[in-house]
Amino acid sequence: MTKIKGVITFVLRLVALAATIVSTIVMGTAHDSASVLGIKFEAKFTDSPSFKYYVIIYSIVSFYSLVVLLLPFKKLLWRFTLVLDMMMTLLLTSALAAALAIAYVGKKGNSHAGWLAICDQVPKFCDETSGALAVGFVAAIIYLVLLLYSLHAALSPIFPVSS
Amino acid sequence: MTKIKGVITFVLRLVALAATIVSTIVMGTAHDSASVLGIKFEAKFTDSPSFKYYVIIYSIVSFYSLVVLLLPFKKLLWRFTLVLDMMMTLLLTSALAAALAIAYVGKKGNSHAGWLAICDQVPKFCDETSGALAVGFVAAIIYLVLLLYSLHAALSPIFPVSS
Repeated sequence: MTKIKGVITFVLRLVALAATIVSTIVMGTAHDSASVLGIKFEAKFTDSPSFKYYVIIYSIVSFYSLVVLLLPFKKLLWRFTLVLDMMMTLLLTSALAAALAIAYVGKKGNSHAGWLAICDQVPKFCDETSGALAVGFVAAIIYLVLLLYSLHAALSPIFPVSS
Repeated sequence: MTKIKGVITFVLRLVALAATIVSTIVMGTAHDSASVLGIKFEAKFTDSPSFKYYVIIYSIVSFYSLVVLLLPFKKLLWRFTLVLDMMMTLLLTSALAAALAIAYVGKKGNSHAGWLAICDQVPKFCDETSGALAVGFVAAIIYLVLLLYSLHAALSPIFPVSS
């Protein structure tokens, strides 16, 4: 029983690692260029503080995911891992929410504020960032599942605690 | 010792309740109007999906904070409360991050996307939303502290578990 749990956790952490790395790379390399009235402009993640924050946070969580997977003595540190998992889930949530808010304005614009949608000008950039956010969403959900799973294992008086 | 912990938790929950209610009301009632080229327009939270999400989430967490404070048998439900506290902290984080991302564009604009800052036109709206976000940030921090505190109490083998 404990072994099956360990395998499930390992697989989830592996998928979370893959998802955060893919999301970071896709967001970090997303770009497109367009010419408006003869002026060429390029869209990339550094154009928005929210997208920059996203790339930084997803890089940090990628690194953390790798370290936890490789850590040989994680059974001893399960309390510490649980708290760090929670902090990582919060960071992922904040980065995802901020980037989604900006991506939504990019796609739909905001007529009240006079902000125009830019996806018609830079469709490739929009598609790539949307893809990155979709994969990033999967990563955040997996982290939430891992967290609830660890909490359940830690708090349940029936099952023995295992990380 | 347990009594002091109980008092601290109660006070933190009371401050969190006050902060979420104040933040919801200030964000929900923030408004300002301006005339540009003879066209009058009004700014309010419903102009942005992120601000609407913020008001909805902070209303939900206000209601939850009140219920938990009034719940007479919360010591029996501490596992459930811990998981719900975590979900509420995640919801607060997502709402805060999304609203901050939009508020930042409102304040600074984004020259790459051609989005102009609107705070010069509707300074009162900007000040009020900034105030709401500052108080909302305090609420999120208190929830994080409550969560870490509950986790510590639940996971520590030295201290007895108390909610």
